Amino acid sequence: MTSESNDIRKGLVGVLADKSAVSTVGKKDIGLTYRGYRIEDLAKECSFEEVMFLLMRGHLPSASELRALKQRLVKARHLPNELKVALEQLPATAHPMDVLRTGCSVLGTLEPEEVDNVKMTKDHEPLLRIAERLTGSFGPMILYWYHYHVSGVRLDVDSFLEDDDSLSQVFLKLLFRQSEKPDPLHNKVVDTSYILYAEHDFAASTFASRVTASTMSDAYSCIATAIGTLRGNLHGGANEAVMHLLEPLKDTQEGQQMVDQKLKNKEVIMGFGHRIYKNGDPRNAVFKDLSRELSKRPEGKPALYAISEHVEKLMEERKWMYANADFYAASAYHQCGIPTYLFTPLFVVARTSGWVAHIVEQRSANKIIRPSSHYVGPQERDMPSTFVRSKL
Amino acid sequence: MTSESNDIRKGLVGVLADKSAVSTVGKKDIGLTYRGYRIEDLAKECSFEEVMFLLMRGHLPSASELRALKQRLVKARHLPNELKVALEQLPATAHPMDVLRTGCSVLGTLEPEEVDNVKMTKDHEPLLRIAERLTGSFGPMILYWYHYHVSGVRLDVDSFLEDDDSLSQVFLKLLFRQSEKPDPLHNKVVDTSYILYAEHDFAASTFASRVTASTMSDAYSCIATAIGTLRGNLHGGANEAVMHLLEPLKDTQEGQQMVDQKLKNKEVIMGFGHRIYKNGDPRNAVFKDLSRELSKRPEGKPALYAISEHVEKLMEERKWMYANADFYAASAYHQCGIPTYLFTPLFVVARTSGWVAHIVEQRSANKIIRPSSHYVGPQERDMPSTFVRSKL
Repeated sequence: MTSESNDIRKGLVGVLADKSAVSTVGKKDIGLTYRGYRIEDLAKECSFEEVMFLLMRGHLPSASELRALKQRLVKARHLPNELKVALEQLPATAHPMDVLRTGCSVLGTLEPEEVDNVKMTKDHEPLLRIAERLTGSFGPMILYWYHYHVSGVRLDVDSFLEDDDSLSQVFLKLLFRQSEKPDPLHNKVVDTSYILYAEHDFAASTFASRVTASTMSDAYSCIATAIGTLRGNLHGGANEAVMHLLEPLKDTQEGQQMVDQKLKNKEVIMGFGHRIYKNGDPRNAVFKDLSRELSKRPEGKPALYAISEHVEKLMEERKWMYANADFYAASAYHQCGIPTYLFTPLFVVARTSGWVAHIVEQRSANKIIRPSSHYVGPQERDMPSTFVRSKL
Repeated sequence: MTSESNDIRKGLVGVLADKSAVSTVGKKDIGLTYRGYRIEDLAKECSFEEVMFLLMRGHLPSASELRALKQRLVKARHLPNELKVALEQLPATAHPMDVLRTGCSVLGTLEPEEVDNVKMTKDHEPLLRIAERLTGSFGPMILYWYHYHVSGVRLDVDSFLEDDDSLSQVFLKLLFRQSEKPDPLHNKVVDTSYILYAEHDFAASTFASRVTASTMSDAYSCIATAIGTLRGNLHGGANEAVMHLLEPLKDTQEGQQMVDQKLKNKEVIMGFGHRIYKNGDPRNAVFKDLSRELSKRPEGKPALYAISEHVEKLMEERKWMYANADFYAASAYHQCGIPTYLFTPLFVVARTSGWVAHIVEQRSANKIIRPSSHYVGPQERDMPSTFVRSKL
C-alpha cells in the first residue's frame, strides 16, 4: 500500500461529483426541496403531474402546460403489441423490477431516441417526451404482466380508464381492474408517495443513470440503468423489506422482540438511517400521517400502525436512528391493498422524473464519468513457465 | 457560488473511487496488465476463454478447469424459447446494443440470480456462472435477432456448431451461417479482440456497473447497466464511429482532406486519445498488426489500411494524439466481413469478463456508491401566490 491508498474515496462519500440544481437533500439548514419548493408544500398542495413537470422542466406548469402534459400522459398509457408479447414471455416468478427494466428496454427498441451528440446537449424535448412516455406506461406495463399471471387475463388497459384519470388513479384502477374512481384516500396515498419518491439528488440510481448518460447513451439505457440500480435492497427495495419485516408481527410486544433480536445479532433493521440525513428524513412525517389516517378507517390495520410506531420509538431510543421515507411507506401502501412486491415499481413511476432531470443536467454540461482505481493486484509478471501456448 | 464549488470533481477525473486488483490501465511505468500479465503476452499466447477465466477467477486455468469452462460455455449457447420470442419482437431497425440489453434483461427473469446480501458478499460462484451464461449466449442472441430480420430465418444455433468451437468460432459460424470452421485469421482477429477488449479498469461502463452492484442488485441488472453505458458513442460505440468515418474514403488523399476539415472545424476525430493513456494505447499495436495482416490477403482492403495509417500519422504529427484501441479494431473487423453495427456487441461479449471481475470486487467489500452534489438551484421558496391548490 502506498500513501495513495489514503486518498481512496470509497462509496464516494462526500465527494462532490458535479453541480446540480434539482433538489436539496440534507443540505445544512435546508430541508428537502425540489427546485426550491419544500417537499411538505408540494405534497400538500400539488398533484404528482405538477411535480413531475416541475422537476423535468424547472418550473411549475401553467394551466395550459398542465393540460397538455395530461393529454400526453393519456397517450403514454398505450402498450404496443410487441411490448405486450415480450411481457408475456416473462414468468410469473420474475422480479417486478426486472419486468420494468425489460419493458423499458423493449420500448427503447420500438420508439428509440435519436442519438446525436450535439443536439442532445441542447434540445431536451425528445428526452422529456420519452420520460413522459415511460412514466405513463410503467404502471400499465407492470400491471399487464401482473394480471397476465395473477388474474389470467390480457389486461385491456383502455377499457378501465378515462382521460381525466391521474397517474395514481390509473395505477389503482388497473391494479383492481375497476372502472370506478379509486378510494380518494388510497389515491392520495399513491399520488403523495409519487411526489415524495420523485427525486433525491445523487442517490445511487440517479448517479448510475448519470454515468450512463455521460457516454452519450440513449434515454432508455439511462432509465434501465436506474431501474436496475434501484432494484437493490439497499436502495429501492427498502420499503418492501420493511413490509416483510412487519407483516408477520401480531402486536407491539412482538415488534419489541424483533428489535431486541435484530440488535442483539447486529442485524440491520430496514427503514432506518440514511447516508445523508442524520437527524431524520423529512419525508417520514408525511408518510406517517398517511399511514395513521388509513389505520383509523374500518378496513385499516391499527395493529400494523401501532407496531410501526413502537419500532420507530425503540430505534430512536436505543440506536438514535430515525425512520426514513421507506418505513411508513410500507404500512401506507399495504393498507391501500397494494401487493408488497409492487412497492418498488411504484417508486420507478415516481423517480423517473428525478432521473430525467439529472440526465438533462448531465447532457447539458457533459464530461464522461470515469474515476480511477488504486491498484492492489499482482505486480507485472511473465506468463507461467508451465503455460502451454494455446493461441488459435 | 461558494468555495465548495472548487471541490467539484467533474467526471470524477483522478478520483480514486476504490481499490482494485484486476488490471493496470495507464499506471506509471506499467503497461496494460490483467491480473499482472501483460496484455501483449495474453494476446499472443492465450485463447480468450483462458483470459476470461483469469479475469473472473484471478488465475490462469489448469487444463481441467479450462475443459470444464468450455463445457459450460457449450451449454451457455442455448437460447430459451421465451427469449427467442422476445427477441423477435425487437424491430429490424433496433440498435444492436438495445437488443443485447433487452436479451440480458429477459434472461434475468428466466434464470434469475438469487439475491441474498450476506451470501453475495462471500460466494461468487453463482455470479460467475451467470457471467459465463451471458458471455456464451450474447453471440447467439444478437445473431438470432440479426438473421431473423436480415436473413428471414429463425437461426437454429445448434445446427451450425460443434462442442469444440470457441466463442470466436461460434460468433463467426453463426454470423455466416456455416458449419465449417471459420478462416483462421478471421478467427484470430475476433479471439484477440475479445482479449484486448475484455477489461479496462474503471471505464464508465464498469464503474456504472459497480454503482448498480453497490445497492446489492442482481447480476443481470449490473450487466444491463454496463451494456447501456457502453452503448454511448463516447465509449463502446467508438470503433463503429471510426468505421463510419473511414468507409467513404477512397484513398489517403481523401483521408488527409477529412482530417484537415475536421481539425479546421474543431470536430472530434473518433479513435484518438484517451482520458487515461496520454502516450498511446498499448492495445493499438496488436490491432494494427492484425489489420495490416488482413490487408495483405487477396480479399483484404489495402486502401482502407493505408488510409488508416495515414490518418494515424497526421493525428500524431498535428495534434500529438495517438490512436486508441478502437481505431484499428474498425478496419480489422471490417476486413473479416463483420457488419459495422455488430462491432459494439462483440465488445459486450468480451467486456462481460471485466465487468464481472469488478462486480465481484464491489460485492466483496461493498459500500453503496452515493456521491454528493454542489447545489446551484433556486433558494428555498414558498409556493407561488398564484398557485391554486390542486391536491387530489
